[in-house]
Amino acid sequence: MSTVHRSFIREILKAAVDPGVISFAGGLPNPRFFPVREIQEAAKKVLTEHGASALQYATTEGFLPLREKIAERYAARGTRVRPEDVLVLNGSQQGLDLVAKVLVDPGDRVLVERPSYLAALQCFGLFEPRFVSLALDRCGVCVRELGEALREPAQGGAAPKLFYAIPNFQNPSGISYSRARRQETARLIAGSSTVLLEDDPYGEIRFLGEDLPAIRTFLAEEGRADQAVLLGTFSKIVSPGVRLGWVVAAPPVMEKLVIAKQAADLQSSELTQRVLHRFLCDHDVNAHINNIREAYRRQRDLMVGAVKSLFPPEVKCTEPEGGMFLWVTLPKGMSALAFFEKALEQKVTFVPGAAFFAPGGAGDDRDNSLRLNFSNCDEAMIEEGMRRLARVYAAM
Amino acid sequence: MSTVHRSFIREILKAAVDPGVISFAGGLPNPRFFPVREIQEAAKKVLTEHGASALQYATTEGFLPLREKIAERYAARGTRVRPEDVLVLNGSQQGLDLVAKVLVDPGDRVLVERPSYLAALQCFGLFEPRFVSLALDRCGVCVRELGEALREPAQGGAAPKLFYAIPNFQNPSGISYSRARRQETARLIAGSSTVLLEDDPYGEIRFLGEDLPAIRTFLAEEGRADQAVLLGTFSKIVSPGVRLGWVVAAPPVMEKLVIAKQAADLQSSELTQRVLHRFLCDHDVNAHINNIREAYRRQRDLMVGAVKSLFPPEVKCTEPEGGMFLWVTLPKGMSALAFFEKALEQKVTFVPGAAFFAPGGAGDDRDNSLRLNFSNCDEAMIEEGMRRLARVYAAM
Repeated sequence: MSTVHRSFIREILKAAVDPGVISFAGGLPNPRFFPVREIQEAAKKVLTEHGASALQYATTEGFLPLREKIAERYAARGTRVRPEDVLVLNGSQQGLDLVAKVLVDPGDRVLVERPSYLAALQCFGLFEPRFVSLALDRCGVCVRELGEALREPAQGGAAPKLFYAIPNFQNPSGISYSRARRQETARLIAGSSTVLLEDDPYGEIRFLGEDLPAIRTFLAEEGRADQAVLLGTFSKIVSPGVRLGWVVAAPPVMEKLVIAKQAADLQSSELTQRVLHRFLCDHDVNAHINNIREAYRRQRDLMVGAVKSLFPPEVKCTEPEGGMFLWVTLPKGMSALAFFEKALEQKVTFVPGAAFFAPGGAGDDRDNSLRLNFSNCDEAMIEEGMRRLARVYAAM
Repeated sequence: MSTVHRSFIREILKAAVDPGVISFAGGLPNPRFFPVREIQEAAKKVLTEHGASALQYATTEGFLPLREKIAERYAARGTRVRPEDVLVLNGSQQGLDLVAKVLVDPGDRVLVERPSYLAALQCFGLFEPRFVSLALDRCGVCVRELGEALREPAQGGAAPKLFYAIPNFQNPSGISYSRARRQETARLIAGSSTVLLEDDPYGEIRFLGEDLPAIRTFLAEEGRADQAVLLGTFSKIVSPGVRLGWVVAAPPVMEKLVIAKQAADLQSSELTQRVLHRFLCDHDVNAHINNIREAYRRQRDLMVGAVKSLFPPEVKCTEPEGGMFLWVTLPKGMSALAFFEKALEQKVTFVPGAAFFAPGGAGDDRDNSLRLNFSNCDEAMIEEGMRRLARVYAAM
């Protein structure tokens, strides 16, 4: 697996160097929306007013006023989180590593969606679990498969340690869990001893439909917040280059996560934490997020429209209500990898779907699906790139 | 173990909140030397000239011009390192985690110095090795014990995976390896299949004696650079709050470390990497380091002098040639923990030595030793704190 993924990434990085290539491959936010000037002001203020503290060691848990801001932002969206339930991380990716380190032993079962986030599969893979992948439909994870997987095996053996879910505009599929599916997922988790690891990097980038509570909220309503671990990040709403995300967890798990974080790198950067906190205090980040939403919605509309208008009807795509990705399914028997190679000759890239399937598991549409990113190209690039892809497809 | 360490840390943090407490406990650099204004200028320049790139995702390996700077700085000290052998980390602490993750399986033997760096023991402990601790004398690790530990067990079993060494002004003991001891260590490692994990956070803070090459240099001379993994950091020479360190490793290990880094957090902050690079380009960091050396030497002299003049001759201390710590040994049978508790009543803290011993192993002076930090207090605080400690000791 590692070899396969590394080689995709190498191809993609190599292609990215060529300015003539249109890349729908990455998972990058649009740099047009980085608040460069505002971050510069915030950095100046922090270093002028609290320079020595910003450059010194501080606590593993993170800068308390930033954790309070994160809790406030959850409260504004109807989710109750206390500052002491928040641990600041180097991007939410670090949460995958710490949670796996704390909970997963070799051979443990880890439940993932099918398909799932590539770098999560790679991260968990280092802890040598047995992956069990669960089908997704238009409304989220298949509850029949989830229920079966959560049931403790009749002849001994342990319950799965984790169910890793991305309920909002999933990477790679763009699928979101409906309200009912969130409730049902919470009910099933509450009836098990498995921890729900809920990854929500895109939740605030919703441009269609109704904002829905985290599955954690439904677990908390059943008194089982202790089974919920929730990841969030500033990467998509402010900047990935500052590398700041967080994990929300209840005390028993949080205590272990703090020890693991301390062992991993002592703490996240005090400087970037304080700068981000200053930025959040001094600027209307919600207005900023609205600009991102508006632009991504237009980019997504263009891309979905292009799939519908430029490709034959047997080529299907998801129609995400937010986030950065859509998922294209080619007819059975067509190879997304062959499509990728021919597209690269025409200087367009994307990620073939196989990269997003857990090793070993069965894969519906594993070989005939692909992920398209719509956040990192402007509208003209999307139109041109999709035209090229349609020509390549027609020629195949 | 974890419980013990966490409770010490809690005590110490609680004490640190009280402004009346003189702390010799932490491992903090003196904030007086943080280049606050220069970092502010660098941040302004980076965000003005390359704002979008500094806030975007970038490569896992790190910002290439920064890796080149790191290689240049090694070259200036006579150590040959190529930029591609450098992976940028969130402080060198992260190197401990990644190296252990890549190399250590549960039950593997890991060799450590006795005493050793507390947070390394905690970090390795999560990977469930069997620790073997090796005595230190005034010139470094005991080569007889190292040679015995490296020998493959007669009745099968594997060689140790790692030898973790801190050859310059070790934390906690302040001991440095002599040139001969470095050569002998390299020779023994070269004759084994064990990897040397050489941690060098303090190497540039030498204020007495001759600058000595890394053990890696001697391994490289024997053609065995592949067995050397070297950690470095900007925490002690610039700022720990930016959380930037690095690992130097040869291609086979480096390839695994890059995969582990990607899984752990994708990459280190592009913003802080570029700011630090700008700082290194625009300012004379060596002059800055000379200021730190000069101040720490005076602080170290005061503290060593106080041990010699205020305590009876049976209380011994190391006389480090650099770094931030010295190691005090009380007479056998005296409890450093009892001393700690009585000292805390007089509002002075330090770390009792037992925290720095690997679990399970034998411990010369485990219970009657302690670590004193001299970097983070000004001269008046050191004089007052040492007077209080001497009074507490006399009363015991």
